[in-house]
Amino acid sequence: MTEPAAISRQRIIVNEDGRPYPGVPIISQVVAHGDTVYLSGVVSDPINPTGDVRFQTREVLRQIDQLLGSAGTSKSRLLTAQVWLADMSMFAEHNDVWNEWVDAANPPARACVQAHLFRPDLLVEIMVTAAR
Amino acid sequence: MTEPAAISRQRIIVNEDGRPYPGVPIISQVVAHGDTVYLSGVVSDPINPTGDVRFQTREVLRQIDQLLGSAGTSKSRLLTAQVWLADMSMFAEHNDVWNEWVDAANPPARACVQAHLFRPDLLVEIMVTAAR
Amino acid sequence: MTEPAAISRQRIIVNEDGRPYPGVPIISQVVAHGDTVYLSGVVSDPINPTGDVRFQTREVLRQIDQLLGSAGTSKSRLLTAQVWLADMSMFAEHNDVWNEWVDAANPPARACVQAHLFRPDLLVEIMVTAAR
Repeated sequence: MTEPAAISRQRIIVNEDGRPYPGVPIISQVVAHGDTVYLSGVVSDPINPTGDVRFQTREVLRQIDQLLGSAGTSKSRLLTAQVWLADMSMFAEHNDVWNEWVDAANPPARACVQAHLFRPDLLVEIMVTAAR
Repeated sequence: MTEPAAISRQRIIVNEDGRPYPGVPIISQVVAHGDTVYLSGVVSDPINPTGDVRFQTREVLRQIDQLLGSAGTSKSRLLTAQVWLADMSMFAEHNDVWNEWVDAANPPARACVQAHLFRPDLLVEIMVTAAR
Repeated sequence: MTEPAAISRQRIIVNEDGRPYPGVPIISQVVAHGDTVYLSGVVSDPINPTGDVRFQTREVLRQIDQLLGSAGTSKSRLLTAQVWLADMSMFAEHNDVWNEWVDAANPPARACVQAHLFRPDLLVEIMVTAAR
């Protein structure tokens, strides 16, 4: 029997006193369990999102790079990605930015579907898992 | 080479004779693989859902507590949560109930998007994974 | 400390020269990490989908069988499934085909929600994980 793997959590969205921000869910932006890393869904800007789907996708992927780095891994070790687009008509534009970013030799398994996000001006949200 | 981890399944939704209920998918409500636990999407009541999003969220989280317990774990060891709301206008109300429930020192990675669920009177569905 | 598990990737959707097909995301159809296998979202036909939800579900499940086989596993070792239907009115018909296919003694944890997919004539997409 192997020892159970340790869990670590980073960047918990919560006030200094451990209480939530009003209307905002308490989450960990990064959870690691053994050598698997789980990120929360990432959007370009949860407060005041601007820009088109190319701009927002770039910003989401920039944040994902940072969060993966803080967990000791990188986009070349992605396992899965789930993408939500506010309108599927933006699929090709979103994919262009995705393809510029992803490690073409080591892409994750992925699914992309349409969904309304938690603010109407959010055009894209991405949730990934990675190995480390 | 490590021994492959064992799989166990609990609360399979199927008739006593191993046949499905009409129109209902055969699923396991709980699957464990090694020290990772996967729950099916949980709704307040699959047959006759009532109540507002606060009521339904409380009921979903109560069932998740039970299912996690039956797999030997608890909400303090959650890894991920995926939340679907039938209307994103209920986001803040849903989050209030989530925040009362979640272990604020150990929240999961999470994403929440809008989706129509399998009955129109279902307002929220949540699918989680946990370590044990 | 256990050795980190190896990652392998199969069936990467990319041109021979490592460049993407226009408008199509670079993904791995299969990613394995240790003894966990992740598949991309599978649709019946990404270019020219035809048929009703029963036809498309059968075709999706046929492809999932192939992809699981190529990763050295099978539907009897499924851990999770996420199903997106273009219209939830097709839930019962989809489930009939699912129930003919799934190993009733070893079904995965599952969630099914409604979502527009990347082509309007796609009626169902399924993303699974499995142990091997």
